[in-house]
Amino acid sequence: MNTIITIGREFGSGGRELGRRLAEELKIAYYDSEIVSEISKRTQLSENYVKQILEKQPVPLMPITIGHSFYHVPHPLLESNRAIYNEQTKLINELSEKSDCVLVGRCADYIVRDKHPFRIFVYADMESKLRRCREKGDEAEGLSDKELIRKIKNIDKDRAQYYEFFTGRDWHDKLNYDLCINTTNTVIKDIVPILARMFRA
Amino acid sequence: MNTIITIGREFGSGGRELGRRLAEELKIAYYDSEIVSEISKRTQLSENYVKQILEKQPVPLMPITIGHSFYHVPHPLLESNRAIYNEQTKLINELSEKSDCVLVGRCADYIVRDKHPFRIFVYADMESKLRRCREKGDEAEGLSDKELIRKIKNIDKDRAQYYEFFTGRDWHDKLNYDLCINTTNTVIKDIVPILARMFRA
Repeated sequence: MNTIITIGREFGSGGRELGRRLAEELKIAYYDSEIVSEISKRTQLSENYVKQILEKQPVPLMPITIGHSFYHVPHPLLESNRAIYNEQTKLINELSEKSDCVLVGRCADYIVRDKHPFRIFVYADMESKLRRCREKGDEAEGLSDKELIRKIKNIDKDRAQYYEFFTGRDWHDKLNYDLCINTTNTVIKDIVPILARMFRA
Repeated sequence: MNTIITIGREFGSGGRELGRRLAEELKIAYYDSEIVSEISKRTQLSENYVKQILEKQPVPLMPITIGHSFYHVPHPLLESNRAIYNEQTKLINELSEKSDCVLVGRCADYIVRDKHPFRIFVYADMESKLRRCREKGDEAEGLSDKELIRKIKNIDKDRAQYYEFFTGRDWHDKLNYDLCINTTNTVIKDIVPILARMFRA
């Protein structure tokens, strides 16, 4: 069976970098934005739209109440979201069957659960997450510390809701992961070779 | 500076075994019941009494209210408890200065916090903890599953309260640890050599 490493991560914890570097160090596949591109191709929806759907809290197909009866009302927008989720599940399963790999986010730990993935969760304290966001630039630009903290918290809230919606599990619960790694005050580049030793025979 | 590894652990998670085996694998000192014996010697209190105090929720020196005034009433029992806590803090600091070591429980992660310990927390799901307790015998003997689950929960509640009393921190919070290890469905003997690779230069 392939070695499948899944990475859940708090925003600003360096989890994506850790996943990418770990894949490089172990010389195995790494999937992240490739997933969005491939889904976009398969569903013929724009990459931007796919990305947005996969990063925001999903909207469940709520029944609409009329009097005392319930009717499911199909809605083109919700149907396209559902198509994206289904395609993502199919694609992640395909990729994990192809070769050893690192999968970041996307409830991959749950999607490939029958293939015994090694499930990592990466977290850090707020000060450290703030610093990492500032160093990366882009997303932090023009925001005060207070605004950036609110942004970090909101993104993690979205991730937790997305995870719970798809898996019925609590994103924060340690029991959903095999290893939880605190990256407060660490340099990702320095800890990856140490971590990689765990995966070598 | 010495390599100091501290292990916090849920009851039944195999954390103590993990600590002992990790120390053996790394050929460094391991301190557990030795701490109780040494405190007993230094305080001239029985080992059993010291053990009991160090494993139960501590009783703070509560002020007694008389009318609208508060008086601190010194009490010989509480004073001896305080002596035990102080001796433990002193001893753990001494041991961590002597050589590389693994320290299990006892808020060691907090006590040696200025010496940059590597802080591990070991946890598992309830089914796995039940099985480990049954295999070890002793503590599980004669108890139904329901009673044993209650016992496991109570011991962890005591540990959480003890930890919070001494450190002001939440025992369950991932941020208090560098690495959290899920031992559900794992054999401790098998994972320790893999974990030990992380500590070798």
